Amino acid sequence: MNNNAFWNLSYGVYIISVWDGERPTGCTANCAMQITAEPPTIAISINHDNYTNQCIEKTGKFAISILGYNSDPSIIGTFGFKTGKEIDKFASVSFEKLAGMPVVKDACAYIACEVINKMETDTHTVFLGRVFDADILSDKEPITYSYYHKVLKGKSPKNAPTYIADNIKVNSEIDSEASEGYVCSICKYQYSGDIPFEELPEDYKCPICGQPKAVFKKQV
Amino acid sequence: MNNNAFWNLSYGVYIISVWDGERPTGCTANCAMQITAEPPTIAISINHDNYTNQCIEKTGKFAISILGYNSDPSIIGTFGFKTGKEIDKFASVSFEKLAGMPVVKDACAYIACEVINKMETDTHTVFLGRVFDADILSDKEPITYSYYHKVLKGKSPKNAPTYIADNIKVNSEIDSEASEGYVCSICKYQYSGDIPFEELPEDYKCPICGQPKAVFKKQV
Repeated sequence: MNNNAFWNLSYGVYIISVWDGERPTGCTANCAMQITAEPPTIAISINHDNYTNQCIEKTGKFAISILGYNSDPSIIGTFGFKTGKEIDKFASVSFEKLAGMPVVKDACAYIACEVINKMETDTHTVFLGRVFDADILSDKEPITYSYYHKVLKGKSPKNAPTYIADNIKVNSEIDSEASEGYVCSICKYQYSGDIPFEELPEDYKCPICGQPKAVFKKQV
Repeated sequence: MNNNAFWNLSYGVYIISVWDGERPTGCTANCAMQITAEPPTIAISINHDNYTNQCIEKTGKFAISILGYNSDPSIIGTFGFKTGKEIDKFASVSFEKLAGMPVVKDACAYIACEVINKMETDTHTVFLGRVFDADILSDKEPITYSYYHKVLKGKSPKNAPTYIADNIKVNSEIDSEASEGYVCSICKYQYSGDIPFEELPEDYKCPICGQPKAVFKKQV
């Protein structure tokens, strides 16, 4: 079995958001799909260990903010590589309350859902949500997961359905990983800018997860 | 609620295939997503009225053939706008038997699954499949549903989760539908070639669903 085949499935990049009491929280996801057209329902897959999972269980609602090519990529890292149990992810990411749900301002569209069914697996819950509100927020093109992965060199966090352990190389990585480079130890983003990494200013931050220059490690 | 927001979810284009006794059959789908990484599982959504649904129920297995930009677009139409109950869809589409499943030869990758769970909705079944085989078949780039929709001007069949009734216009269609043109009455493909439609040879066939020139209707 060649797990690299899974990378040929196409996805977008989404922030699944929810209320934790008075505070909004959420996580990055690439797995969301429409299940029925009438009434419109959407399924998402969320790891049991993600704090967002517990909050969806508790409130029975979630919103999907669909990120665009021009959305700030650090949003993906903030929501993907940190836990909402410990930090307020929306402290650094602007949101609007739409249809009663927290929605990322910098998104191209949002879909608000009420959970009507779920299916459990060993590691993830598939929530089936009935859409109760949705709208387009800008004319930004939705970013694809393939673009995030291949062009932005972003990786999947450990809890993602599409997580691939570091020892498995995907086709598109084989070339780039052959050359030396600096990699963010938090989100695995690989620096590929024109300025040599060593010459970047000390306040340089990982464009994906926002971590400081110091967490980058040289790979050989 | 603005249903156009749903078009911002990103998908690929897949042929879900299955055995019907000795004969292979299947249908076009854009909704397939990985649910868990270890063990790898994939969810698909198939309309109750699709013959493929009954065959998956009966055999407990399905394969996903992932189509690429260079895959023949008539495959999408053959599997999307005809029923496998009445015709042998694989009669005009080459397949290989891989891991015991019928797989479209012209695909860029395939994933073979055994059903381990399912979730019912009013119109669709969400099948959860545990992957028992997968491989890359070519270095073709996977086609996105957005490309099929916007560039190839393909539409969703009535049974698709992403079906939008004809009276609802999606953003990208508003411009193109304002101009006159010929539209396939079967799959709604809009002819946009350089040669005037009237001057096309009589054996011209719809590139999406393979229907003859005669089924095209002039829209005003």
